[in-house]
Amino acid sequence: MNTLEYIEKHKDRFLEELFDLLSQPSISANPKYKNSVFKTAEMVIDSLNKIGIENTKLYETPGYPIAYGEKIIDPNLPTILIYGHYDVQPPDPLNLWLSDPFKPEIRDGKIYARGACDDKGQFFMHVKAAEIMIATNNLPCNIKFMIEGEEEVGSENLEEFVKKNKELLSADIILISDTGIIANDTPSITTGLRGLSYVEVELTGPNRDLHSGLYGGAVANPINILCSMIASLHNKNKEITIPGFYNDVEVISKEERDIMSKAPFSIDQYKTELDIDDVYGEDNYSTMERNSIRPTLDVNGIWGGYIEEGAKTVIASKAYAKISMRLVPNQKSNKITQLFENHFKSIAPKGVKVKVTPHHGGEAYVSPTNEKGYIAASKAMEESFGKKPIPVRSGGSIPIVALFEKELGLKSILMGFGLDSDAIHSPNEHYGLFNFFKGIETIPLFFKYFSK
Amino acid sequence: MNTLEYIEKHKDRFLEELFDLLSQPSISANPKYKNSVFKTAEMVIDSLNKIGIENTKLYETPGYPIAYGEKIIDPNLPTILIYGHYDVQPPDPLNLWLSDPFKPEIRDGKIYARGACDDKGQFFMHVKAAEIMIATNNLPCNIKFMIEGEEEVGSENLEEFVKKNKELLSADIILISDTGIIANDTPSITTGLRGLSYVEVELTGPNRDLHSGLYGGAVANPINILCSMIASLHNKNKEITIPGFYNDVEVISKEERDIMSKAPFSIDQYKTELDIDDVYGEDNYSTMERNSIRPTLDVNGIWGGYIEEGAKTVIASKAYAKISMRLVPNQKSNKITQLFENHFKSIAPKGVKVKVTPHHGGEAYVSPTNEKGYIAASKAMEESFGKKPIPVRSGGSIPIVALFEKELGLKSILMGFGLDSDAIHSPNEHYGLFNFFKGIETIPLFFKYFSK
Repeated sequence: MNTLEYIEKHKDRFLEELFDLLSQPSISANPKYKNSVFKTAEMVIDSLNKIGIENTKLYETPGYPIAYGEKIIDPNLPTILIYGHYDVQPPDPLNLWLSDPFKPEIRDGKIYARGACDDKGQFFMHVKAAEIMIATNNLPCNIKFMIEGEEEVGSENLEEFVKKNKELLSADIILISDTGIIANDTPSITTGLRGLSYVEVELTGPNRDLHSGLYGGAVANPINILCSMIASLHNKNKEITIPGFYNDVEVISKEERDIMSKAPFSIDQYKTELDIDDVYGEDNYSTMERNSIRPTLDVNGIWGGYIEEGAKTVIASKAYAKISMRLVPNQKSNKITQLFENHFKSIAPKGVKVKVTPHHGGEAYVSPTNEKGYIAASKAMEESFGKKPIPVRSGGSIPIVALFEKELGLKSILMGFGLDSDAIHSPNEHYGLFNFFKGIETIPLFFKYFSK
Repeated sequence: MNTLEYIEKHKDRFLEELFDLLSQPSISANPKYKNSVFKTAEMVIDSLNKIGIENTKLYETPGYPIAYGEKIIDPNLPTILIYGHYDVQPPDPLNLWLSDPFKPEIRDGKIYARGACDDKGQFFMHVKAAEIMIATNNLPCNIKFMIEGEEEVGSENLEEFVKKNKELLSADIILISDTGIIANDTPSITTGLRGLSYVEVELTGPNRDLHSGLYGGAVANPINILCSMIASLHNKNKEITIPGFYNDVEVISKEERDIMSKAPFSIDQYKTELDIDDVYGEDNYSTMERNSIRPTLDVNGIWGGYIEEGAKTVIASKAYAKISMRLVPNQKSNKITQLFENHFKSIAPKGVKVKVTPHHGGEAYVSPTNEKGYIAASKAMEESFGKKPIPVRSGGSIPIVALFEKELGLKSILMGFGLDSDAIHSPNEHYGLFNFFKGIETIPLFFKYFSK
């Protein structure tokens, strides 16, 4: 039985198993869901045991465990290490979901659920591809799985695990499906990722909430000041004003920019899909460049004062924001976080106190297109899609990819099957049935070409 | 029995009755408390009936009812109309209260409860003062009560009521206790109030929340844009940049500013009490001027994106803010609201849509110090405090005061007994027992001097 026949025969069961995984609210950011995250880790181990993966184990960490398993058919053959994550983003705002984020359902050929694409649906393709290769006696090399539960909160405990288990994780390449393709008829492989620096800021003005009539105009209003400070982080050309921010930014050659500009992209369609009358970003760069090769600074959340229904004439004592910066190769996450903190504190006027708390961060990554791993992925996709994939730089971050290179000396192949429109991190996240099954079909081909 | 003897004999009961009122969460801004607001209105009527006020009635409105009552002893004598409100501000943030906002308790000689000062504790002084005058046969003129339930949400239905009931409300002066004194040993009378324009703004960028990695830097982030737009509403001299905003602002003479600067005020104490290292406000004006004779613009609430624990890399589809402007005499609330809306929409960049929703507003007010009402209040306070009160302009707003002047042709005397430190609109609102009983003692003196 070949791969396609096996998929056809077992597709309903594949979906049922995925739905079980998707039904668990494994939200790593919210301690309320702790039990569910642990339960999901066990389900991952069960799914590996069931298909014949050996030495499976949940490796405990100070946070959530890492699910490991392997099938070593011959130590002399190459080893492919699969990485994925079983934790998901919070589903907020809940009221915008058309169906329960943790009761997966299929509508219009797409699986709707939190984690459907990011990353339960995608790492599970590898579990099912492994099942097929093992069941049909077509596993051409060794395979290892490392599925973690803290990707959405910065993979804080993965580094320690990787450092301590270099032997366990020894391999020839890492294969990850946590990215996307340009379109279902335009396959692509991600060759670059942005790094991340993420901070939370807290401004304190007066020591208590004040009546805006009695104090308005006479004391620094932390919300107004926070707005001014955030506004000042960009200049009128929409460049970031933090001193030193661009110092280490990789300069992209005109040639490379020309190649990038050839990628299929419709600005009109982009605007229509997002319902915006124009794009917005750093001067002198195209949209595709702004969201891939340029560093950015975005407020991800802001709050302060009275935010319920109606009106309250209050000057809040405190105002808060969550701010993230996407970084490009050569920018160092820790250094940028420090630059941000120094600058942000320096621009605060008298009358407010500033606290900056770093969240997780990670480094950017570039993968070469002339190495064995990329070539195998390219051939695999060309065979399954009938079209050669395009190498693209993504604006997203998978910080652990830089970590793997540093600690394990391994390159990662980012062969994901999602679409930009899958609404990951948003309400109504979904993953196409086409993409799920196309992934399962493509992965054994990667194994074949990589082992040759 | 004189006033002081009556107070001494009945003080425990006075407090019990006030505590009953304070126990009702009559939060007009939040529809969840609807029943409690109606219940409180009935309690006001009961309290009037009990002391011998006649023709009491709850006048229905499309919102909350207005409690009315009167005692006409002789149509040829003057009539004093008491205004107050039985609704209160929301108690948020609840976690900062040291005791339940709706379980009043006395600590260190102060009554702690939402509404203790603003305005249940203050309007109730008039009910008890009336009780004393009636019970001791010392009511020297006619008295009318008009206690409303929508002051904290803009008194939206009061205008219609006043317009329709000019005969019912006919009087010689309006007496209001909804303001404060400088200190317990420094009595003062409020002779000016600021007006108010209050708007809520909503920015919409992309039609859904987006992943900040994939879209960061390429689309207008509504939170960043909102911050920039808000920041731009002040220039570097902290003046408001809305075109035309200052056009109608009353120019205060150097003489008047000199008199104002003589009022007792310690900037060091002000900073220490608020725990701020400096004050902040419009250049070329003092703190006392900034919060009284100058118009202001403050953000009262802001929200958007991910505001729970942890980190989420999202670009929000929407961002919101509640913004209020305090106005000074001659500035018109509706006109300023329109100027704001026009300007705010004009500064929005492409890539976001702006919606501006006006909340309630009101006009500023100045009361002359050479008229009968002011003089009676000054004499009353001088007698009860043993010290002549200082006339001061307040930064707060009681929009209905301008309304009363326009519709009823009546001046209002703002003889309040609160303190700046009472934390009205804040957690741990309180009202001094000294102030509550001093008010009850002073009010009959006002009646005496006004009737002479």
